Amino acid sequence: MSEQAGPIAQTPAPPYTAVIFTSLRTEGDHGYAVMSARMTELASQQPGFLGVESAREGVGITVSYWRDDDAAAAWKQVAEHLIAQERGRAVWYDDYVVRVATVTRAYGPKGTS
Amino acid sequence: MSEQAGPIAQTPAPPYTAVIFTSLRTEGDHGYAVMSARMTELASQQPGFLGVESAREGVGITVSYWRDDDAAAAWKQVAEHLIAQERGRAVWYDDYVVRVATVTRAYGPKGTS
Repeated sequence: MSEQAGPIAQTPAPPYTAVIFTSLRTEGDHGYAVMSARMTELASQQPGFLGVESAREGVGITVSYWRDDDAAAAWKQVAEHLIAQERGRAVWYDDYVVRVATVTRAYGPKGTS
Repeated sequence: MSEQAGPIAQTPAPPYTAVIFTSLRTEGDHGYAVMSARMTELASQQPGFLGVESAREGVGITVSYWRDDDAAAAWKQVAEHLIAQERGRAVWYDDYVVRVATVTRAYGPKGTS
């Protein structure tokens, strides 16, 4: 997923699924930027995709939002994404953690959504 | 919370609670950096605090991890944090969303934690 993603995701009222991907990059690009943009584009075309937020500052944090756990699990198994995951482990990431979570409450400055 | 936070949080096996705070800053510092460092320090002293990850690149994403929803809710109500939240709404943030989520699965390059 990607730094090219937009700002705050517009998500519906909970519950929905959040996939929190925290990573440390290796040195150099090695095709990362192109893959990252492509994965964001591809994710946004998947059934149940709700939005994505991403920032990198030392650590990278990408949170993608999905209708439910099944939608998130299906995205993990998309063929082109599987190839990116394999290359991620081999080349792009020194370390990462993926956390799958159920969002139960959400609120902003103007109150609960 | 803060850009001063470390890299990938070392969290125990799920379940635990994640608070995903996504924000857009206003222009200028206005005491933000000092508050941010202080809030990270204060959060890390709370009962049930497990760790925090933070990055800002256009959008800011801070994910704090807690033993359970009660621990996360207690941190929200800490007096000094309430003051920071109020000032956040008035001065530091153009917009933000707080999402409270239950982490059900976590894995890294070497498998499930």
